[in-house]
Amino acid sequence: MFPPLKFENNVLKLLDQRKLPSREIWISCRTSRQVHEAIREMVVRGAPAIGVTAGYGLYLGISKFKGSRAGFLKNLEREAAFLKTARPTAVNLRNVVDGIIHVMLSDPLRGLQKDRAKHLRPVDSSASGLRMKIEKFKRRVLEEARKAHREDDRLCRTMGRLGAVLFKSGDRALTHCNAGGLATSGFGTALGVLYAAKAQGKKLFVYVDETRPLLQGARLTAWELQKSGIPCALICDNMAASLMSAGKIDRVIVGADRIAANGDTANKIGTYNVALLAKAHGLPFYVAAPKTTFDFHCPGGKDIPIENRKSEEITEGFGKRTAPKGIQVWNPAFDVTPHRLITAFITEAGVLKPPFKKAFRKLK
Amino acid sequence: MFPPLKFENNVLKLLDQRKLPSREIWISCRTSRQVHEAIREMVVRGAPAIGVTAGYGLYLGISKFKGSRAGFLKNLEREAAFLKTARPTAVNLRNVVDGIIHVMLSDPLRGLQKDRAKHLRPVDSSASGLRMKIEKFKRRVLEEARKAHREDDRLCRTMGRLGAVLFKSGDRALTHCNAGGLATSGFGTALGVLYAAKAQGKKLFVYVDETRPLLQGARLTAWELQKSGIPCALICDNMAASLMSAGKIDRVIVGADRIAANGDTANKIGTYNVALLAKAHGLPFYVAAPKTTFDFHCPGGKDIPIENRKSEEITEGFGKRTAPKGIQVWNPAFDVTPHRLITAFITEAGVLKPPFKKAFRKLK
Repeated sequence: MFPPLKFENNVLKLLDQRKLPSREIWISCRTSRQVHEAIREMVVRGAPAIGVTAGYGLYLGISKFKGSRAGFLKNLEREAAFLKTARPTAVNLRNVVDGIIHVMLSDPLRGLQKDRAKHLRPVDSSASGLRMKIEKFKRRVLEEARKAHREDDRLCRTMGRLGAVLFKSGDRALTHCNAGGLATSGFGTALGVLYAAKAQGKKLFVYVDETRPLLQGARLTAWELQKSGIPCALICDNMAASLMSAGKIDRVIVGADRIAANGDTANKIGTYNVALLAKAHGLPFYVAAPKTTFDFHCPGGKDIPIENRKSEEITEGFGKRTAPKGIQVWNPAFDVTPHRLITAFITEAGVLKPPFKKAFRKLK
Repeated sequence: MFPPLKFENNVLKLLDQRKLPSREIWISCRTSRQVHEAIREMVVRGAPAIGVTAGYGLYLGISKFKGSRAGFLKNLEREAAFLKTARPTAVNLRNVVDGIIHVMLSDPLRGLQKDRAKHLRPVDSSASGLRMKIEKFKRRVLEEARKAHREDDRLCRTMGRLGAVLFKSGDRALTHCNAGGLATSGFGTALGVLYAAKAQGKKLFVYVDETRPLLQGARLTAWELQKSGIPCALICDNMAASLMSAGKIDRVIVGADRIAANGDTANKIGTYNVALLAKAHGLPFYVAAPKTTFDFHCPGGKDIPIENRKSEEITEGFGKRTAPKGIQVWNPAFDVTPHRLITAFITEAGVLKPPFKKAFRKLK
């Protein structure tokens, strides 16, 4: 278990993943603005983890609110909209935040629906009654954030258990980026499957793509696997083809940032690359992701927004200039793997095989 | 022109490519041991450039020799054997060094053959006559080293001119590692083709793989292209597939470290990766290399020795630890692209298309 966040005494503490593996530093967030910045600057990253983080961010955004119920609602929606601008590709952020808003608007017993339906009379319109009601709403938002947090942990563990059947003892897996505990509430998606397989007594070896430009593989996945006691070896991203050709890889497993309705999958840049290599060498390519990573409103990969990040991540990524000044850089944070390259999705509803549109019905 | 070496006043000066692009520092070599170290530590790199460098290294190895003609020959062969251990994959090193030995043994007028054929009477067996003869042999070795140097320049320029026909104005090329002036005597192989196309008035755009672990793309190719006025953009190695899928690449061109008799090609790690991606997207994949990079004694890719380099290149490549301590690393310096993925070889004998075994006859 590598939980990258904890919420205690109205403070969200985030493990600064930019500093790993050399230092383990926790950063405290007390406002939604701080949470937004932490997501944008990748203190916390990984689609499920930023979803859970954003849930707490939404709570922090309204936790000091004072005013009317209508004002509270307006504020909640403004905070949600603000948090959703932190990063565009991972859909979990949007799904968690919108999920909380949805509950607050639709739950007739405890939500805010009554305030919207102007014709309904407020139960208690006195000033202290209003304050109590607002405080109750706030607690409800926090409760929903905690629920999303617990739910993520539950989904990952279920996913791990169900996905572990795809691995047998002796398998050599390749993974890209970090879809581990650090990318979720602690257990992991792709790595969670490997952890579950290990817990079942299977002996695995994992090759880890370092994952340029930010080296999540080298810094985070290698760190997790080492701590978990799963033997592994680090490679540069461009070495995977050579390993496959040498017969040293049995299957590939990665996480996801957004999965479209047809199965096209956005994940860390380089994932599409690995999927093509797996295809060329006849290797299974698995994507492990909980339902919060699926976007059924998005028909296909071309509809997924891809974030472009600053060029210094490539030219000065190691605290040292490694390219000529003034050089143009292309730095998309994600790519899209077409569904035809994906052997199966590992989800909390089981291992889903093509045709995906039909298989995805289990998730709805 | 980016000559990475010059030989003046019995000193071989090498541009320290490990320091580029931030600093341009020249290192002086006065002994074969220094040359060996410079090749091993990659002060100079690129198959043709290390071939030329080794030629001068051989001369430096025997330039201070005093003794008999038989001793000279023995010394020359020992120095040649020593230099060939500097790096195992690029065949140019062996080809240049063995080429000089061959001339020294076979040229009946000026070589050493007579010393081997014991029954032939030495022309002048006096002490001063012997000294003069030895000095003449040394000059001949230097002459051959200079010839290999001039020859490399000539081959690259011819190759550039012949290969440029494959590119048309508006083309967006992708290249991996550095097969430029710095990798040769100054003009380049793959980049030489692009320079020649530019000289013909063609407008090109080049995407440059940064090329982990040592970033020859980011540090050297981007630097050369920027100085040459060819517009370019730097990417991480794992971004090429995404660029191809977006229709932003028209063709791929790379250099080579050793080409087997069947066309299988060893080149910088990641080349096989790019070749698979090009195939998957239906893009032409060209290898530009002079005859000194061909090894007709080597039947296929599996017979090419692949150098493994130290793990710190990956874990501490930028003077900063970027992976957990004690992590296992796999760091081959090269991979092999099977001939079936290669559209054509660009050589000084023209553009050679499959079947390669037949086409390669032009090079012999």
